[in-house]
Amino acid sequence: MDLNSLSERITHTNGKFGEEAQQRLDSLTKPQGSLGRLEEFAKQLVSITEQKMPDLDKKVVFTFAGDHGVADEGVSAFPKEVTPQMVLNFVNGGAGINVLARHAGAEVVVVDIGVDYDFNNPSVSPLNKGGIKGGCFISRKVVSGTKNMRKGSAMTREEALKCIEVGMKLATDYAEKGYKIFGTGDMGIANTTPSSAITNVLTGVSVEDITGRGTGINDDAWKNKVQVIKDAIDINKPDASDPVDVLAKVGGAEIAGIAGLVLGAAANKVPVVVDGFISTAGALIAYSINPKTRDYMFAAHKSQEIGHTAMLDKMGLRPIVDLDLRLGEGTGSALAMLLIEAGLKIYKEMATFEEAAVSNKE
Amino acid sequence: MDLNSLSERITHTNGKFGEEAQQRLDSLTKPQGSLGRLEEFAKQLVSITEQKMPDLDKKVVFTFAGDHGVADEGVSAFPKEVTPQMVLNFVNGGAGINVLARHAGAEVVVVDIGVDYDFNNPSVSPLNKGGIKGGCFISRKVVSGTKNMRKGSAMTREEALKCIEVGMKLATDYAEKGYKIFGTGDMGIANTTPSSAITNVLTGVSVEDITGRGTGINDDAWKNKVQVIKDAIDINKPDASDPVDVLAKVGGAEIAGIAGLVLGAAANKVPVVVDGFISTAGALIAYSINPKTRDYMFAAHKSQEIGHTAMLDKMGLRPIVDLDLRLGEGTGSALAMLLIEAGLKIYKEMATFEEAAVSNKE
Repeated sequence: MDLNSLSERITHTNGKFGEEAQQRLDSLTKPQGSLGRLEEFAKQLVSITEQKMPDLDKKVVFTFAGDHGVADEGVSAFPKEVTPQMVLNFVNGGAGINVLARHAGAEVVVVDIGVDYDFNNPSVSPLNKGGIKGGCFISRKVVSGTKNMRKGSAMTREEALKCIEVGMKLATDYAEKGYKIFGTGDMGIANTTPSSAITNVLTGVSVEDITGRGTGINDDAWKNKVQVIKDAIDINKPDASDPVDVLAKVGGAEIAGIAGLVLGAAANKVPVVVDGFISTAGALIAYSINPKTRDYMFAAHKSQEIGHTAMLDKMGLRPIVDLDLRLGEGTGSALAMLLIEAGLKIYKEMATFEEAAVSNKE
Repeated sequence: MDLNSLSERITHTNGKFGEEAQQRLDSLTKPQGSLGRLEEFAKQLVSITEQKMPDLDKKVVFTFAGDHGVADEGVSAFPKEVTPQMVLNFVNGGAGINVLARHAGAEVVVVDIGVDYDFNNPSVSPLNKGGIKGGCFISRKVVSGTKNMRKGSAMTREEALKCIEVGMKLATDYAEKGYKIFGTGDMGIANTTPSSAITNVLTGVSVEDITGRGTGINDDAWKNKVQVIKDAIDINKPDASDPVDVLAKVGGAEIAGIAGLVLGAAANKVPVVVDGFISTAGALIAYSINPKTRDYMFAAHKSQEIGHTAMLDKMGLRPIVDLDLRLGEGTGSALAMLLIEAGLKIYKEMATFEEAAVSNKE
């Protein structure tokens, strides 16, 4: 299915389901509204799924991995080979996302959408290493790393569209397999640089105000990063009214995959938990293609990356937690799933005033 | 053990353990500090327990229940009989705290420390109703509701001390039984009123600025509540330099029990997760008795009750989540336990750079 026909399938959630959920929430043994955002989560889940008693028994976090030609410009504190090394770590179950996904009862699916490394080399193939506690490796390579966006377009428009389709297709496949909630995640050395570029183009906030320290660069490296982003935008002139153009010129493969996953989640009426800065750049692309996707999103957390808030504000999303995270991978999504599920359990398991014979408000 | 001898046992946590934990955290496959507060939680757990690899396998939330004579002044939206009704709901497993504690893998212990109701009446005895999914009921009644503090002291000094001792003893007993983390919780119609009074006396912030809507009162009832609190402070003249005096005159039995639990947790080197507004009033009493208790506290969440922040600021605590909760019972504690445990799992389960053969920062 192509992007346009999938996007046409996306509808706003139906307020009727939310109202019915609110009625039940108001009958439970607590002052009305006193469980705050937990109630909001339950209501949104009911609205999205159009089910009176939704389940979250099968959860999955998709960690999209891709490399970035712009890493050559010295924008990251870590060397580029860390991207494939971390992919292996995800498959072996030793990364932050593995630990937190296990804690949340979610599976991890690692998607090679643009890593500049041949995982078919049998001596290091992740397929030989995966264990029950690790992530499932899926090869959907569209590019072997993007091109250096300071010198030209990071991807062709066709490549960007192909990456979006990978995400859309995964969303549809996993919806059909019965997964009830998706989390987004990313891995890609240097990927805060394209994410900042996307943020600048789509929110209009200055590059200085939305460029952060990534994995931990110093002042000089930060100044260089800002200049690299400005140069990339100058040379490529991405068209803010054409999100696919922005994605191709100053984006990345994993960001495009995440955009596709969000679109696919919305089309399949599956809630999607959007992780931090990089994931939100992907979600903002999806939102710019079709703003109705917003109804299906949960913003997992407030990243320490300073540009994150500009994107959340643009979409009108309030993050669920604020724990000073800046790791990516989907770690915030996994944590947020725990709290979203808490909201659903409240909604499904609490006794009503009538059932518990408790007196209601005077 | 009396309050003074227990308090003398409380020491600051030893920074050496925290430093060792930080070394391990910095060796894990993530940019240093990128898991933000999750890392802080792990470090604090190691510091508190003085164990290199602490466990959180046995968790318990104590929900202290008590009634308040000041309910006669029309300060609450709910009638007073809701306190015992909710105690039965806790025991039967239908309340918010039951749902969230199950979600967090924690047990619920419901402590009758001051309910104005005879639970020994066999036809309604909670002891006849408790199930595996419900709460464990413990009878430690010190008062059958406090006296109306607008007309005089809520409790005698002896009663307040007895309530503190109930909490201290429970902490010691459950530490000996092998419980690794405690959560605090409360139930008591009208108990935001004494909590606001305590906040005013111990922080100095004006009554108007620390008095909220409780379970949902209207403007007129709020004005009345403010006046009731001012009158109670005027008539009783609690001595801010004597926390037990404050607790006796304008406090409550469940607040005193929580204060004792916090003191007992610190004396036994057990981490304690302090719930919202009422629990924090109890924790602030404990802190005022012995500021070293702070090292053992986690502030679960930022309550919607406007006076909460003044108390957290006074103790220098940053809440873990902000989900617009205002239910009490320990609901915030249960949620926060999930995130504290996430921090511990990161610390214990993630691979190091060496183990995963991932290149470190350049």
